[in-house]
Amino acid sequence: MTAETPAADFFARHRELLDRAVAAAAERDHWAPFNESPSTSVYGEEAPARGEEGFRALLGQDFALPGHPGDGTVAPREVSPYGLPLDVAYPKVTPDEAVATAKAAARVWRTTDPDVRAGIAAEILVRLNADVFRIAQAVHHTTGQAFVMAFQAGGAHAQDRGLEAVAYAWAEQKRHPAAARWSKPQRRGGPLTMDKTFTAVGRGVGLVVGCNTFPTWNAYPGLFASLVTGNPVVVKPHPRAVLPLALTVRTAREVLAEAGFDPNIVVLAAEAPGERNAAALATHPDVRIVDFTGSTEFGDWLEANARQAHVYTEKAGLNTIVLDATDDYRGVLRNLTFSLSLYSGQMCTTPQNLLVARDGFATDEGVKTPAEFAADLGAALDAFLGDPGRAAGTLGALVNDDVLKRVEEASALPGAVHPTRPVAHPEHSGAVLRTPAVALLDAAADRPVYTREWFGPVSFVIATDSTAHSLDVFRETVSAHGALTAAVYATSPEVVDAARDAALDAGVHLSENLTGGVFVNQSAAFSDFHGTSANPAATAALTDPAFVTGRFTVLQSRRHAPAVEHADA
Amino acid sequence: MTAETPAADFFARHRELLDRAVAAAAERDHWAPFNESPSTSVYGEEAPARGEEGFRALLGQDFALPGHPGDGTVAPREVSPYGLPLDVAYPKVTPDEAVATAKAAARVWRTTDPDVRAGIAAEILVRLNADVFRIAQAVHHTTGQAFVMAFQAGGAHAQDRGLEAVAYAWAEQKRHPAAARWSKPQRRGGPLTMDKTFTAVGRGVGLVVGCNTFPTWNAYPGLFASLVTGNPVVVKPHPRAVLPLALTVRTAREVLAEAGFDPNIVVLAAEAPGERNAAALATHPDVRIVDFTGSTEFGDWLEANARQAHVYTEKAGLNTIVLDATDDYRGVLRNLTFSLSLYSGQMCTTPQNLLVARDGFATDEGVKTPAEFAADLGAALDAFLGDPGRAAGTLGALVNDDVLKRVEEASALPGAVHPTRPVAHPEHSGAVLRTPAVALLDAAADRPVYTREWFGPVSFVIATDSTAHSLDVFRETVSAHGALTAAVYATSPEVVDAARDAALDAGVHLSENLTGGVFVNQSAAFSDFHGTSANPAATAALTDPAFVTGRFTVLQSRRHAPAVEHADA
Repeated sequence: MTAETPAADFFARHRELLDRAVAAAAERDHWAPFNESPSTSVYGEEAPARGEEGFRALLGQDFALPGHPGDGTVAPREVSPYGLPLDVAYPKVTPDEAVATAKAAARVWRTTDPDVRAGIAAEILVRLNADVFRIAQAVHHTTGQAFVMAFQAGGAHAQDRGLEAVAYAWAEQKRHPAAARWSKPQRRGGPLTMDKTFTAVGRGVGLVVGCNTFPTWNAYPGLFASLVTGNPVVVKPHPRAVLPLALTVRTAREVLAEAGFDPNIVVLAAEAPGERNAAALATHPDVRIVDFTGSTEFGDWLEANARQAHVYTEKAGLNTIVLDATDDYRGVLRNLTFSLSLYSGQMCTTPQNLLVARDGFATDEGVKTPAEFAADLGAALDAFLGDPGRAAGTLGALVNDDVLKRVEEASALPGAVHPTRPVAHPEHSGAVLRTPAVALLDAAADRPVYTREWFGPVSFVIATDSTAHSLDVFRETVSAHGALTAAVYATSPEVVDAARDAALDAGVHLSENLTGGVFVNQSAAFSDFHGTSANPAATAALTDPAFVTGRFTVLQSRRHAPAVEHADA
Repeated sequence: MTAETPAADFFARHRELLDRAVAAAAERDHWAPFNESPSTSVYGEEAPARGEEGFRALLGQDFALPGHPGDGTVAPREVSPYGLPLDVAYPKVTPDEAVATAKAAARVWRTTDPDVRAGIAAEILVRLNADVFRIAQAVHHTTGQAFVMAFQAGGAHAQDRGLEAVAYAWAEQKRHPAAARWSKPQRRGGPLTMDKTFTAVGRGVGLVVGCNTFPTWNAYPGLFASLVTGNPVVVKPHPRAVLPLALTVRTAREVLAEAGFDPNIVVLAAEAPGERNAAALATHPDVRIVDFTGSTEFGDWLEANARQAHVYTEKAGLNTIVLDATDDYRGVLRNLTFSLSLYSGQMCTTPQNLLVARDGFATDEGVKTPAEFAADLGAALDAFLGDPGRAAGTLGALVNDDVLKRVEEASALPGAVHPTRPVAHPEHSGAVLRTPAVALLDAAADRPVYTREWFGPVSFVIATDSTAHSLDVFRETVSAHGALTAAVYATSPEVVDAARDAALDAGVHLSENLTGGVFVNQSAAFSDFHGTSANPAATAALTDPAFVTGRFTVLQSRRHAPAVEHADA
């Protein structure tokens, strides 16, 4: 690989972007390399229409992946939560074939200069961003996210998180020089001198198991971290959300091929519903890295069974809020209303358990008991979601029947104070939209109810004995069952400190007194860590050094340095 | 914790040392913070005698650890391989008690500023270095290492490796700021501004399981990495090598107490022979990090069973040398003779399998067949070890009867061309000294013999079909069984390249054409990586970022930034 090759060109082209990304991750101020605004003033007049046309042109077709392994096609039967059948077919490839192809393709990639690998990854992301309107359509029509959210979370923010992973993976490989001279003085004679070479080598085939609700956002960190650290990657999308990752894989393959590498360094392992190839892929002896987002059950299974691999999981948890006091009760209600409504609570970060002392918590509108607070929250939800356009734009559509069943079950609980109700989508009659359900529970009596995750638009206002008791429940339940997010509302420094201590004990990130335009379920790449390995909900954070260091090894060779050459030699 | 406290003083005192250590690890030139020369010109006229007296004063006594948990004492019955019974008794503490005490002591330590933790760790190492002659005596009389080697490997080099781990652990926690302001421009109005706090939090109780042959060198990296990343540590020494780690634990506790922390952040869990507490400790729910050096069998058991913990193991392997050609045959023999003799091959890095093409390899003294090479190696060993003083100073003593049995078994193999022979120690009649055994094997017929580790002074010259076949055997056996070291002798760039490729495939570090004063079984802290996670012999390297990142988590909290204050407010 010489400086003239396209691979090196991508690095030169994106060097500044990569340096900026590394600096941003270290500074943790706001920095967003990819613009989150789906605006023609940013992306051009034609971008929205071209994206939609590009998406429509894929429907009902075989998805083209030149040079991809496989025999025939597989049709996962993706159907949009908004009613549109996608009917796209993908190359059919067995787990063994996918892994063997990726492994064989990566012989050179494994030891390629990390600069070259990072440059290629950055180019892939830049091209994905150029295609963001089409990818947003694909995310919108596989997840049920409203279009703007699909554009942001599934497009720009996913790309930000991807570049963040590239930055960490690249920087971590640059911690040691590629070569060094070691010169040790000796008591007699000249120094002992050795030349040493250090090579960052990928660990083996990486597997990325995608999820239905955030196919790109949750897949990009693992995909790009594995790729940049020298690993080939098999991408196994959720059968109901293949298209966003198929577009991603195609772009990756195009850039790899242009850079002179085998495109099979990135392979798509689409499957039909019910095939359940993830287990076979994850336990394949040549798969050495697994990134998974999804259920606790399968995540735990992977951690226990994919023993030949480093396993990074993001599973479910009990996102918790402790309410002790506020001087902006309307702000609390406004903030929580949006947090609970966004994408119908189908985020791994949506708050579920809201802990309030039985005697109530102090607000600028007087003391609010759990029942009063639950009623106010229900009323605020009704007011916010009363406008059909805003409701559709915020709630999106329910991604599947399981979520619908769960929210109906919650609405039938004895404590249900704000049952879910259907909302008609102004444009898509096929979409299933439901407002969040809120139930009032008791910390002691209803423990079995709130200590499991109710993925979807379900939240509980839970009456505790006191704020101290709330913090105990928070600490204990999150330590035992995990959480991706936590929040506290408190006005006294003592309670804020106690909440911080409890969050450190529980191993979860904490948001304090959010009443404005920042929401507990959102995290900003390059500034907020998403998840932690310190509680059972995940084994890693997006993204920190621990997320990348296990994906490669530095191997060294050493030899006596050549004798010093004289100028006249 | 303020700047006036002793804890902060240690950081200020050692700031320059820590910065230098971080820079050295990144540069990988020679740097040794602790002097390896057991010389009075370095350590002072009185140091050797004071060290020996200090050691003798410990014998036959209860080892004092003020404030340490436990009820009564345990007597592991340490007996020096040189004949001296140590008869030291240590606090008797159950696994549950050790873990509970360490956990309770670490409540503050867990979130203490990484600067403070690193300063304390540096102070501990500096004090261990001031006590190096006594520690060397303790290592000498528990491992059987000759005194100079015990001083170097068990003293100065162990301290170097300890500081290396401190440097990585400290630097990795400094990757992110303790606090940051996030300010995101909005389309309308002022920016959204959040203040964020980032806290590096220890994962839980760390357990260090020591080994008999390198009690300090192999324990210090894990001990100091866990400590500096905010974890309390339970040190469980090998029952035959407790004293070196007891001295280490005592020094750590003294420094912690002086710095205002609970000394029980570091606890000694000595045990009687046969107690086998390691399994109970390693699977304790509060133990979240395990560092182990020892047998493949128990290492594999830990990896499979200590599922609640991050497990770092260094086990056994098949250290391999491929001989293809040399222009310095005498240099090869001289270098290998020392490598095989040093500490009677009782190093995890001693070469075992020497692969030579059946038709021989080219040297400046003509082609040497495997049989000729094995005979020459045997003769070189006899010549080198013919001097009793040099033999005693190089071989040290056999650490236990298992090693003796193994070398006798190897000497009885049909292919044994250089059986072991006893050597009398000039001073210690009780010491068991044996020269290395060399046997000639066939790559095909004798596979079961050379694909297991023969820990001790046992090496095999193995006849292969060709150098290409040697490289295949190297690649396959090391991939399957692991290795800590590998080497090649070759004169053509093609063969060197092929060997480098094979080493990258096998996931092992490679030494090339060592004929001078550097030996394959030695690694220099801050320059050479010891071990890799890329083959079965170990799950980590000493030391790289992957060795430290799993020991802590960065937890964040965030809140709206206070409104801008006006100057006239």
